[in-house]
Amino acid sequence: MEVKGKGEREISGLRGNCIVAQSGGATAVINQSLCGVIQEAQKHREIEEIYGARDGILGLLKEGLIDLRKEKASIIDALGTTPGAALGSCRYRLKSYSESKKDLEKIIKICKRYNLRYFFYIGGNDSMDTANKVDEAAKRMNYQLKVIGIPKTIDNDLVFTDHCPGFASAAKYLAISVMEAGRHLESLYNSETVAILETLGRNTGWLAGSCALAKRSKEDAPHLIYFPEIPFFLDKFLKDVEEVYHKIGGVFIVVSEGLRDEKGNYICARKDRVSTDAFGHPELEGISDYLKKVIESRFKLKTRTIKPDICQQSAVHFASRIDMEEAYLVGKEAVKLALEGKSGCMVIIKREKGKVYKGRASAAKLSLVANMEKRVPLRWITKKGNFVSKEFIEYVRPLIQGEVDVPVGNGLPYYPRLKKSRIVG
Amino acid sequence: MEVKGKGEREISGLRGNCIVAQSGGATAVINQSLCGVIQEAQKHREIEEIYGARDGILGLLKEGLIDLRKEKASIIDALGTTPGAALGSCRYRLKSYSESKKDLEKIIKICKRYNLRYFFYIGGNDSMDTANKVDEAAKRMNYQLKVIGIPKTIDNDLVFTDHCPGFASAAKYLAISVMEAGRHLESLYNSETVAILETLGRNTGWLAGSCALAKRSKEDAPHLIYFPEIPFFLDKFLKDVEEVYHKIGGVFIVVSEGLRDEKGNYICARKDRVSTDAFGHPELEGISDYLKKVIESRFKLKTRTIKPDICQQSAVHFASRIDMEEAYLVGKEAVKLALEGKSGCMVIIKREKGKVYKGRASAAKLSLVANMEKRVPLRWITKKGNFVSKEFIEYVRPLIQGEVDVPVGNGLPYYPRLKKSRIVG
Repeated sequence: MEVKGKGEREISGLRGNCIVAQSGGATAVINQSLCGVIQEAQKHREIEEIYGARDGILGLLKEGLIDLRKEKASIIDALGTTPGAALGSCRYRLKSYSESKKDLEKIIKICKRYNLRYFFYIGGNDSMDTANKVDEAAKRMNYQLKVIGIPKTIDNDLVFTDHCPGFASAAKYLAISVMEAGRHLESLYNSETVAILETLGRNTGWLAGSCALAKRSKEDAPHLIYFPEIPFFLDKFLKDVEEVYHKIGGVFIVVSEGLRDEKGNYICARKDRVSTDAFGHPELEGISDYLKKVIESRFKLKTRTIKPDICQQSAVHFASRIDMEEAYLVGKEAVKLALEGKSGCMVIIKREKGKVYKGRASAAKLSLVANMEKRVPLRWITKKGNFVSKEFIEYVRPLIQGEVDVPVGNGLPYYPRLKKSRIVG
Repeated sequence: MEVKGKGEREISGLRGNCIVAQSGGATAVINQSLCGVIQEAQKHREIEEIYGARDGILGLLKEGLIDLRKEKASIIDALGTTPGAALGSCRYRLKSYSESKKDLEKIIKICKRYNLRYFFYIGGNDSMDTANKVDEAAKRMNYQLKVIGIPKTIDNDLVFTDHCPGFASAAKYLAISVMEAGRHLESLYNSETVAILETLGRNTGWLAGSCALAKRSKEDAPHLIYFPEIPFFLDKFLKDVEEVYHKIGGVFIVVSEGLRDEKGNYICARKDRVSTDAFGHPELEGISDYLKKVIESRFKLKTRTIKPDICQQSAVHFASRIDMEEAYLVGKEAVKLALEGKSGCMVIIKREKGKVYKGRASAAKLSLVANMEKRVPLRWITKKGNFVSKEFIEYVRPLIQGEVDVPVGNGLPYYPRLKKSRIVG
């Protein structure tokens, strides 16, 4: 990926400390963005101390700051290929200014106390809303703070950006899972005939659709893919399954967790949920197990379900190298934008025209990104609503290229942790 | 692994064709054993044609034989790192001689028709029962046939052998899954606090126990492991969860699918099962989902479930090199044993004494292996029944060493298929 450059970039000259935080569910490459921020920040005199907030915005609310200059350079390097959010993460929602005034005032107070002037928030659309509110609060309170959002989500649903760091690695891992499980199933079609792999993706089918990368020939899995973007009709689904079964002798199905009916209601919304998601998203449960029961009772075909769940968000061992590199670069670019004096924006990736894939960093307004959701374009889903078009594949294939070398010792990778030296305020 | 050799090994001189088949659920290395058989068979003049049976023993019953000499050498090589049983597999049960007389007579008739003199059957304990019955039938019908079983099972439950090819690769894949998902969960303990990963293992906890390899420090996942070998008490389980939660702030649990109560009844046996497993094993359902519900209702802690299911049987991309090598060698050794005139036995792996791991091939009687099951020794499970001892780790760690290079193109591996040229009888 190339970083936008119009000759020399101007530096605003604002001096002070910076803070970086991670928010929402982690991805396999979220710590690359953290590395990008830290290592770029180290290069500039305008940035004095480099702090990390523990557990996202909670670190600012609870004064959980750590001193990232005290971490070993080798650990920072190794973080890049370590799963989970190294600083800790959260799903904490800031409401409107009036409702969250206390929180926002506290955040700005902490910023003042630690002379924080650069604020980097790595996250998805909910987190971009948080970053936007911090930016607005700082402006309202006349505190000079440069707030830059860094995109991160396996869901790939942030607007403006061509794609989101984290998505391609999850896609690559899911694709190989489908390839391997598909070949496994194929050799036992005579006794275990159907498999359903459930991907994450509450409202968007980017990950489910990416499983199509596994398919190189007619017999290859997956045979059917179902998307939250297309209303799900059980009768049609059963017809699809029957058709593939008669053609191939077995059926490998991919479903996105958030399938909905024609009224937009989730097929499997939980009724007994114990904890409400802080962002008010309904908790979903077991679409694959539900469909397994339906298939087994209708066709008497033994059906297996596969739920990689958080493994698809954390599989560094089979991450995409392109994704790793881009995640690093959006972190680095965030620091550059802030130093130029920009605030209230998120780094985005633009795809350059041409046969060979090339990404380029740019920026979009946080206020326009926050809470928005980019769905799979309907023209990228086949007319039957059960597979992706060639355009989808052409979009995603360049992003999963390249493998990542993870340092291995004794048969398993080495995944370090930060020391997390506390800052005494 | 070293192959047993007392100087030159004697060859019996029996000439004819050989047949190889794969049975039961595949493993990540099952095709290495197939390669081992084919490539060793190619070296000996006593073996004329090399046939493969499609879908295990069904290939003999339905005359589904393919000509393996017609396959390209490069494809045979590449099979070694391809998931699924390349010849196809089955779960077909031969009953006692009197009950399955028709089947067994048909099998021997086909053997005569194709002048099959060497019979190699790659499978687990149910499959070894099949091989044993074929061996006995041939003897009873005075047909000279050398029958050798080749061990394969992720369950690691075959007796006599130190371990089973296929097990270590599944163990390695599960261990990295726990490492990665564990680190992911850890960064969100404040909102998603518990994860339960469900491994295969109906009656034995070898795979569940192997997840302990992921743990290198106190905070590392997994924190609790539950085994089919130890009666499961819900109250005790909840106490364990509470204790870890108070100590660490989050809980990563591994459960084997086949947990049982003190009377030996499965906690989650399916009542509505649609298809009875051919070997009469009860079909199990959702222990992790069941425990999730219990934890959420008791502690109000959000809990995720992870079910890798058949991905753990097929993850060639993170297989163990030691496992790959041993799987190849047991295939090779089977051919050597048969050529020495041995029949009615299964290749086993013995572990040599010494600090550095070394396996050695030997043999055990099929009649003693068939249908037997090796469980995790109780002394290798901690007194509290919720983790493994150091001895378990020392047993499994050498087996997961080394990574496997899978040929990758366009971001994903290349997994070839056999051409499967039919034989005209």
